[in-house]
Amino acid sequence: MSSSKPAVVIDLKFQRREIDAALSHAFRGRKVMLAADKDQDLSSARYAVVWKPDRDLFLRAANLQVLFSGGAGVDHILTIPDLPPIPIVRFVDESLTTRMSEWVVLQCLSHLRQAPAYLRQQREHLWRELPQPEAKDVTVGIMGLGVLGRDSAAKLKMMGFNVIGWSRRAKDIEDIDTFDNSGLDDFLSRTDILVGLLPLTPDTRALFNAGLFRKLRRGGALGGPVFINAGRGGSQVERDLLEALGNGTLRGASLDVFEVEPLPADSPFWRLENVIITPHAASATDVRALLRHVEQQIDRYETNQPMQHVVDRTVGY
Amino acid sequence: MSSSKPAVVIDLKFQRREIDAALSHAFRGRKVMLAADKDQDLSSARYAVVWKPDRDLFLRAANLQVLFSGGAGVDHILTIPDLPPIPIVRFVDESLTTRMSEWVVLQCLSHLRQAPAYLRQQREHLWRELPQPEAKDVTVGIMGLGVLGRDSAAKLKMMGFNVIGWSRRAKDIEDIDTFDNSGLDDFLSRTDILVGLLPLTPDTRALFNAGLFRKLRRGGALGGPVFINAGRGGSQVERDLLEALGNGTLRGASLDVFEVEPLPADSPFWRLENVIITPHAASATDVRALLRHVEQQIDRYETNQPMQHVVDRTVGY
Ligand SMILES: NC(=O)c1ccc[n+]([C@@H]2O[C@H](COP(=O)([O-])OP(=O)(O)OC[C@H]3O[C@@H](n4cnc5c(N)ncnc54)[C@H](OP(=O)(O)O)[C@@H]3O)[C@@H](O)[C@H]2O)c1
Ligand SMILES: NC(=O)c1ccc[n+]([C@@H]2O[C@H](COP(=O)([O-])OP(=O)(O)OC[C@H]3O[C@@H](n4cnc5c(N)ncnc54)[C@H](OP(=O)(O)O)[C@@H]3O)[C@@H](O)[C@H]2O)c1
Repeated sequence: MSSSKPAVVIDLKFQRREIDAALSHAFRGRKVMLAADKDQDLSSARYAVVWKPDRDLFLRAANLQVLFSGGAGVDHILTIPDLPPIPIVRFVDESLTTRMSEWVVLQCLSHLRQAPAYLRQQREHLWRELPQPEAKDVTVGIMGLGVLGRDSAAKLKMMGFNVIGWSRRAKDIEDIDTFDNSGLDDFLSRTDILVGLLPLTPDTRALFNAGLFRKLRRGGALGGPVFINAGRGGSQVERDLLEALGNGTLRGASLDVFEVEPLPADSPFWRLENVIITPHAASATDVRALLRHVEQQIDRYETNQPMQHVVDRTVGY
Repeated sequence: MSSSKPAVVIDLKFQRREIDAALSHAFRGRKVMLAADKDQDLSSARYAVVWKPDRDLFLRAANLQVLFSGGAGVDHILTIPDLPPIPIVRFVDESLTTRMSEWVVLQCLSHLRQAPAYLRQQREHLWRELPQPEAKDVTVGIMGLGVLGRDSAAKLKMMGFNVIGWSRRAKDIEDIDTFDNSGLDDFLSRTDILVGLLPLTPDTRALFNAGLFRKLRRGGALGGPVFINAGRGGSQVERDLLEALGNGTLRGASLDVFEVEPLPADSPFWRLENVIITPHAASATDVRALLRHVEQQIDRYETNQPMQHVVDRTVGY
């Protein structure tokens, strides 16, 4: 392999076959090393593409200049001790965004249209129409108005939902009432379906807790609030969530992320009929798209243009 | 009750409480009679608002001038023997349309995102990511591009699906390839998810049969075609449908309508894990909205303006 261009090391904990297939089309003229190859000398690597990297990666690859996250979130990187002080670029991609919105709209519609209740009736061979509010009678409150939250907001709006949003910095989005931290209680009191699309940071850890669930709107058209999370499991307090689902504070939930993943087989969540579980699959990274994005950003870096989607380490995303 | 204006008779087989609540706000200054009141002389009624009307309604109300359908479909009227040759107005309403699109988008996303398979895994406490095509890799073919089909098409498109459509008369719709009867085979051969939003007429009866299912695209991104029907059960041949689901010609289905409703408790459909059943609830008529619509059309009729949504009895919808 010719290596006129600085080398890249790959440490992605995805399916090996998918990685190999994508690599066969990527990084022309650049040496590519795999961290999984433990005999490989990584000292010449200037770039690393990582998802849940090995703890020793930064000792072995001591001369990195840029770190590329294999996903939209970077909590899997920022929590590593002795992380070198180099730029971290996260993954942003149209198809990643589209698929997250598919998942979010599916979950909101499932709860609006009472999919769990109709499924229960189906198992009982029971033909019975249930009362049916329409989307405009229901307010979806999205926490996190970044790349993902904004696309979901627009699509939920288009499906007829009333949509409001919350983010760290105040925003101005057409047709959507938005709130920042000072407006959190107001935001929650209007929310029937809460959608979490937040990064995991010190500020968002354990944010979805009993106190927050109690502030959601009661007596809305769905008969009780619903919690949907596709951000990170570390933002939810699962003990509180189970209690809220048990005592009626929450009417239902859709969860793609958990405090511990894979969700242990003995977790009580599996058994709850009003909870829809997916295995951190709301929007999986397409490795080809990831490597295309990394190539684009390396190209910008090597031609002295500012890279895009660089993480602000002071706020943690 | 004052009755300066011509009287109206109501024969709606909906929940009595909902009808009464809606009637208390409707038809000011007009005599309202209920067909359910068997002692009532209906001969003065000029308008009838009906859903699955009694067989003797047209004998009792012999002087009707306009018939209003309580739903979007009129097969429940047109199949009545000795129907008077008066105009039939069907129900068209924004909220009816919106709720149908909620249901259609929910069903398409459920199959795209493999909701039945993830649910099976949830029951088995199994955390396993499944291969996931995105919406743009999947073509939804909508049969029926009327009020409902067009709104669903636009929303599916916006969710990222590739959308094509089929209707009796050729159409020109932005961003959507459309076909008429001569293009049916071509349309089917491109379709991964078939959505039926057709009225039941002599031409559409038994249309969804074994021959048609076999013409759907094989080897598409979902691994097999999916059938979704929210039009009328009379358009589907359920023996063929069961066989197609059993032998893999179809990979899954979502059914809101059936040949016989309520679906009998011993129907084999209830047990099929890849079939999502709802009890003719995709878009129920809101009786208040229905009566508002009827009032508007009566107003047009009485001021000599053409009524809207008048059924073409020669084609049956
Ligand atoms: N489950 C999955 O399959 C999956 C897939 C992809 C991503 N994700 C998760 O989704 C997250 C969001 O992705 P994204 O691309 O939309 O990220 P992004 O563009 O960085 O947006 C993050 C949003 O969260 C807001 N936020 C961050 N900290 C906050 C705080 N303390 N208080 C209030 N708002 C706060 C930000 O506010 P500002 O707008 O003010 O900055 C921003 O609106 C990722 O970090 C990842 O964890 C999950
Ligand atoms: N499940 C539920 O809850 C529910 C609720 C409401 C309605 N529905 C059903 O949905 C149906 C459609 O409603 P809509 O308001 O959209 O009706 P619509 O506006 O009258 O549209 C009917 C569509 O079907 C097409 N069509 C009719 N006969 C055809 C044939 N033989 N071959 C090809 N295309 C044909 C029409 O073609 P042209 O455009 O060429 O006329 C039109 O595009 C209703 O009739 C009702 O049965 C079900």
